[in-house]
Amino acid sequence: MSLVVSGATVVATPRGRAALAGELQRAVELLPGAVVRCEGTAIVFVGDRHEHDRRFQKPDEVLDAAGGTVIPGFVDPHTHLPFAGTREDEFDRRLAGETYSQIAASGSGIVATVQATRKASFDELLGLTLERLDRQLLNGTTTTEAKSGYGLELETELKQLRVLREAARRHPVEIVPTAMPAHEVPPEWRHDPDGYVELVVGQIHPAIAAQKLAGGVDVFCERGVFSPHQTRRLLADARRYGWRIHLHADELFDLGGAKLAADLGAASASHLLHTNDEGIQALARRGVVGVVLPGVSFFLRERYAPVRLLIHAEVPVALATDCNPGSSHTESMPAIIALACLGAGFTTEEALVAATLNAAAALGRADRIGTLEPGKQADLVVLNAPSPKHLAYHFGVNLVRHVVKAGKLVVRDGALVQR
Amino acid sequence: MSLVVSGATVVATPRGRAALAGELQRAVELLPGAVVRCEGTAIVFVGDRHEHDRRFQKPDEVLDAAGGTVIPGFVDPHTHLPFAGTREDEFDRRLAGETYSQIAASGSGIVATVQATRKASFDELLGLTLERLDRQLLNGTTTTEAKSGYGLELETELKQLRVLREAARRHPVEIVPTAMPAHEVPPEWRHDPDGYVELVVGQIHPAIAAQKLAGGVDVFCERGVFSPHQTRRLLADARRYGWRIHLHADELFDLGGAKLAADLGAASASHLLHTNDEGIQALARRGVVGVVLPGVSFFLRERYAPVRLLIHAEVPVALATDCNPGSSHTESMPAIIALACLGAGFTTEEALVAATLNAAAALGRADRIGTLEPGKQADLVVLNAPSPKHLAYHFGVNLVRHVVKAGKLVVRDGALVQR
Repeated sequence: MSLVVSGATVVATPRGRAALAGELQRAVELLPGAVVRCEGTAIVFVGDRHEHDRRFQKPDEVLDAAGGTVIPGFVDPHTHLPFAGTREDEFDRRLAGETYSQIAASGSGIVATVQATRKASFDELLGLTLERLDRQLLNGTTTTEAKSGYGLELETELKQLRVLREAARRHPVEIVPTAMPAHEVPPEWRHDPDGYVELVVGQIHPAIAAQKLAGGVDVFCERGVFSPHQTRRLLADARRYGWRIHLHADELFDLGGAKLAADLGAASASHLLHTNDEGIQALARRGVVGVVLPGVSFFLRERYAPVRLLIHAEVPVALATDCNPGSSHTESMPAIIALACLGAGFTTEEALVAATLNAAAALGRADRIGTLEPGKQADLVVLNAPSPKHLAYHFGVNLVRHVVKAGKLVVRDGALVQR
Repeated sequence: MSLVVSGATVVATPRGRAALAGELQRAVELLPGAVVRCEGTAIVFVGDRHEHDRRFQKPDEVLDAAGGTVIPGFVDPHTHLPFAGTREDEFDRRLAGETYSQIAASGSGIVATVQATRKASFDELLGLTLERLDRQLLNGTTTTEAKSGYGLELETELKQLRVLREAARRHPVEIVPTAMPAHEVPPEWRHDPDGYVELVVGQIHPAIAAQKLAGGVDVFCERGVFSPHQTRRLLADARRYGWRIHLHADELFDLGGAKLAADLGAASASHLLHTNDEGIQALARRGVVGVVLPGVSFFLRERYAPVRLLIHAEVPVALATDCNPGSSHTESMPAIIALACLGAGFTTEEALVAATLNAAAALGRADRIGTLEPGKQADLVVLNAPSPKHLAYHFGVNLVRHVVKAGKLVVRDGALVQR
């Protein structure tokens, strides 16, 4: 099966590996009227239409994208997708002035989601997850990371990860599952957080590894959650299974999370609102991807991560939704790009690379997805817009016209193609 | 033709007239499992399903909205819809630190849009306007105000308004056209702004009135644009034609625009970022609707209007997109509601009323649209969400499932019904 996308402006993002952030802006190249040819699941050609016609036969299908822009499919490298229950009442309390920490202290917050997720059946959780994947795909996301972490006990952590495995079988969006039993200290272990850490190491990690349910692990290193010492213990253990390592770092306080991520050889460190200069330098030195989550800053009405400092230091910076019911309830990478530019200080080009190539690098997949180039998987989005700048400039509306995942058309004219 | 929407939670917003802002929050009532019945173009029943089944016959069509929420169609009371050209390059300059005023002074800004709009053919401008109306409808807007003001000369002002008249014939979205030849002093009158004011009064207003192309007029009262004195002259003239009066007031400086709007009996005053206490009190006393434009604050990275002060003073507050290529490039009222809550300080209920009933009041149509109640026009939206709070809480994704305009289904399952 061959598919040619023609008539559009094609965005050629930097090649090969995660773009160093300082090079991002000049690395984005626009090819007006170029074509992209997919064969099977791969891209085989990106470039001039005449050259294409000389070198290749007529394809099985042509997707006319005249007037539009072709970009790589978005990669969302940080989500908490398999959750049950929503927390709009808490949202209203925050609008009235309460803080996230105050709400959490009152027994709402993440604990409410843990209870709802423990209670949900496998099928309920699967249905909710598939709906979210639909919304991701309609907004141009072709690969998403997704974490457990609303179980905080063996059974529910496994349920969340099995839901992700089943969802991956059924849905075109590619899912990169991450185990996160250390998302919070569960209520029943509040008296003995170290005891919970040992439960994770002794029971939960081994069970996840035995069932091959995750390729990575994430820990929330934060005051009142897991200390740097506990984080080190958890991630050293995770290494034994060959898992990618991720950290929620320096979201509320500077605990040296970024430095810790670099020391441990993490693939990415997320949040980074309070990261100090030493941490930024450490991320840059080790090439740890800094995952910026502007949806959280917007949703919680907090500061944004120090994006200009990160980019100036040449930390490879990625963007993610952090889709979750308490601090960033959205599946849309374009919404995140608009907030990244207008809130956090990205240029439009930096935001595009951060949402594609660098996001792929945060998941260790930059060799396979994240750019439009021959040999990579054919994951692409056709925007109803003359340039990718419109992702931020024309905010609040869905500009995604078509989506191709692994060479297959999965969104046509803004609607899901029936599976 | 009768249509029943069933199975959803129905939002009953306040009745009859623009809600005083201070009453907004407690005035929103949720009716779980209620039905809305439309006959012809009107709503004839809102309430209990069993009562409906006793009183009415089986309808011609049933729209199953199970799990969803029915809200009044959004009314967008401030847009600059019929424009040509986009200004994404200028957007990048702003991201790099230049201000809107600096860009305007360099000859870009609104002048670029004026040039493009003058140059565009009637059909080009119509096509662009219809695309924007499609995006409005897909995001739940059933009535929109739309201004001229990128002509700043007789011919193009008339062209913009004729485009709106033709678009209204072709498109389900109801258009409320407003003449705004005093949107800016045109380049060719920079040496003599008073001369341009006299041209508007002597030539442009009479031509618009003779062709019945507008029901309202708007003036940009601002330092460097039209002074309070010139504004008074323009609006006193507009009164002779029986037009509704609107003002762009106190956006960049406090020139007493809000007070002026109240003195002149305006239907609405927009922006209000720098309005002083006297102005706020005057708006409240005269019942002038304060139109808040959070998209502009977000897009230009400026302060938000003093929403809590306006609401505390019982100014009826509305929300609008201000859709335009320079300071708020979006057609989405849900995006505006999210910014209103998370940026400007609205509660979710206040934002909903501001985007429906109070927005209708800003256009003098609160007797006919803006709420779900018998006798009103059947303009309604079914959201893919369990409550209207999700408009802000679940931001960045399009939650609009179905749209009914004047009793007719015009969006089904997120797609435009072919006309």
